[in-house]
Amino acid sequence: MATNRLFRLRQRPQGLAGKEDFSYLTEDIPSLREGQVLVKVKYLSLDPTNRIWMSDMPQYMEPVGLGEVMRGGGVGEVIDTRSVRFQKGDRVSGLLGWQEYALMPESAVRKLPDWDLPWEVFLGPLGATGLTAYFGLLEIGQPRPGETVVVSAAAGAVGSIVGQIAKIKGCRTVGIAGSADKCRWLVEDLGFDAAINYRSGNLGSALDRHCPDGIDIYFENVGGETLEEVLKRVNLFARIPLCGLISGYNAEHPVPGPFNFGRLLMQRVRLQGFIVVDFAARFPEALSQLASWMNEGRIKYRSTIVKGLEKAPDALNMLFRGENIGKLLIQVD
Amino acid sequence: MATNRLFRLRQRPQGLAGKEDFSYLTEDIPSLREGQVLVKVKYLSLDPTNRIWMSDMPQYMEPVGLGEVMRGGGVGEVIDTRSVRFQKGDRVSGLLGWQEYALMPESAVRKLPDWDLPWEVFLGPLGATGLTAYFGLLEIGQPRPGETVVVSAAAGAVGSIVGQIAKIKGCRTVGIAGSADKCRWLVEDLGFDAAINYRSGNLGSALDRHCPDGIDIYFENVGGETLEEVLKRVNLFARIPLCGLISGYNAEHPVPGPFNFGRLLMQRVRLQGFIVVDFAARFPEALSQLASWMNEGRIKYRSTIVKGLEKAPDALNMLFRGENIGKLLIQVD
Repeated sequence: MATNRLFRLRQRPQGLAGKEDFSYLTEDIPSLREGQVLVKVKYLSLDPTNRIWMSDMPQYMEPVGLGEVMRGGGVGEVIDTRSVRFQKGDRVSGLLGWQEYALMPESAVRKLPDWDLPWEVFLGPLGATGLTAYFGLLEIGQPRPGETVVVSAAAGAVGSIVGQIAKIKGCRTVGIAGSADKCRWLVEDLGFDAAINYRSGNLGSALDRHCPDGIDIYFENVGGETLEEVLKRVNLFARIPLCGLISGYNAEHPVPGPFNFGRLLMQRVRLQGFIVVDFAARFPEALSQLASWMNEGRIKYRSTIVKGLEKAPDALNMLFRGENIGKLLIQVD
Repeated sequence: MATNRLFRLRQRPQGLAGKEDFSYLTEDIPSLREGQVLVKVKYLSLDPTNRIWMSDMPQYMEPVGLGEVMRGGGVGEVIDTRSVRFQKGDRVSGLLGWQEYALMPESAVRKLPDWDLPWEVFLGPLGATGLTAYFGLLEIGQPRPGETVVVSAAAGAVGSIVGQIAKIKGCRTVGIAGSADKCRWLVEDLGFDAAINYRSGNLGSALDRHCPDGIDIYFENVGGETLEEVLKRVNLFARIPLCGLISGYNAEHPVPGPFNFGRLLMQRVRLQGFIVVDFAARFPEALSQLASWMNEGRIKYRSTIVKGLEKAPDALNMLFRGENIGKLLIQVD
């Protein structure tokens, strides 16, 4: 092992990001200093938030600086260590970055639970994805049995888990997704009560049909027209966990909020933004609950795996074109 | 007493409402039936919500039907009764309507507290106005000492009380209002830390100057550009009690939500619509607290009183032109 392959951000993308926005380089790996570990990256998580980090829009962390290694969550194996907290062979997760090898301070990685599960699980249902679904739905949405929960981007990594937790909590669960295949997966495999293909026909009338008692919780991943159609149908005291607004992330001009914003007032809706790290202190409790639901077969997952680090910039756009089902990952090695 | 003067809604207004949208009629007063009281209306409350009720936009009560007496909150005196719960001379409040005499079912009026205070107080700080400020700020805003609270329409009936309660709770309090006079009143008489005249100069830079530590709570009465400027400056975990969106109530076309809607996500803001009636069960507790703050001189109020029922349609527009200070009332008799 001598060199590292990695993506550095070269310019801020306009619209969809592409290869031209990065430098794809071969660099030497610096030597380890005290308190550092060297991680061989196995899988990288591709998420809408990667696109946010590339931009300089106001956001919840510093944007990636020009010239810096592209930020991304990942899992990998410790192959060298000068930290007493880690041994060679440890499996860890962290913001490893779009690269083959990550030299990390010990405080920036955490050991994966000692469960005999494939790597990808720890970027999916037992990673930030599952935790986002868990806290967003349960803490902010506060579902009660019999309520109607609508999830957008429902066949995505987070949405697919939100819907399954909503079912566990006894809610009528309706997913919105972008293909007949995805909708079939949601209903037949994951147990959603209904799924709406927003690309075929009228979203509003489909919501009317599948939410005869209105909408109590809307788990928001997309924004735009979907949000407007849902707002027309929210019940009194509805809750909207605001997890993402993917429809606007590649916009080259500012995107307006919903034209029926006033519905939030009239229906006394509680809309609340959140980021999974806000709940970090409670991750252990949530992971243990998610793991037991998985064991019981009540939470299933699916991954779309793209092989090869060099594919990362193109693969990211699969999210924005709706080409992935479940968790989108790069298999690095 | 023989006849009643009253406004019936004739058509739904386009833009600002005007006389032409009503029939102003003289009608006989029907005789009392069991369980009814006849109320001589003393003062009517003019509120932005009157304009909402005239429209058929989706709203929190049924719109006023065409041909119905225009809905409005008011106070008055029971002058005839076939209810065991009320006596002649009782002072009551309720949705008495834009008329001189209101024939009301006993369940639709409530007795005013037995306090020796002018009528107008029970439509202002000790009426729906004060209660709206109280529950919106305290329950939804959840202010903590040292936080920065920004109030729009701060010289209005609700806003002026919100700011004073925020001061009582130890917050830095910044009002946004539409004239130098109003701003002076807020700072010199009501004790706001600062007031911004949004009509003179740049709202954004004024917010920067007066909210050096960002904005923790934004009590929202107006919407539009004000909301956008505030969203640029909200702190992490800010709260936005959504009380009104007056800037859009007269719009003839749908008004977009804020272009920086995504800030709600990035800053993990909790935005929550509310209507004062949601808290009806707790009105007694709130009224008693508001009354003692008034006694202690910690809550002051001001009214803009327009004399003559016939002025109601024109007077309502003072709200939308920002011509009132404090509570806007019609003195009916």
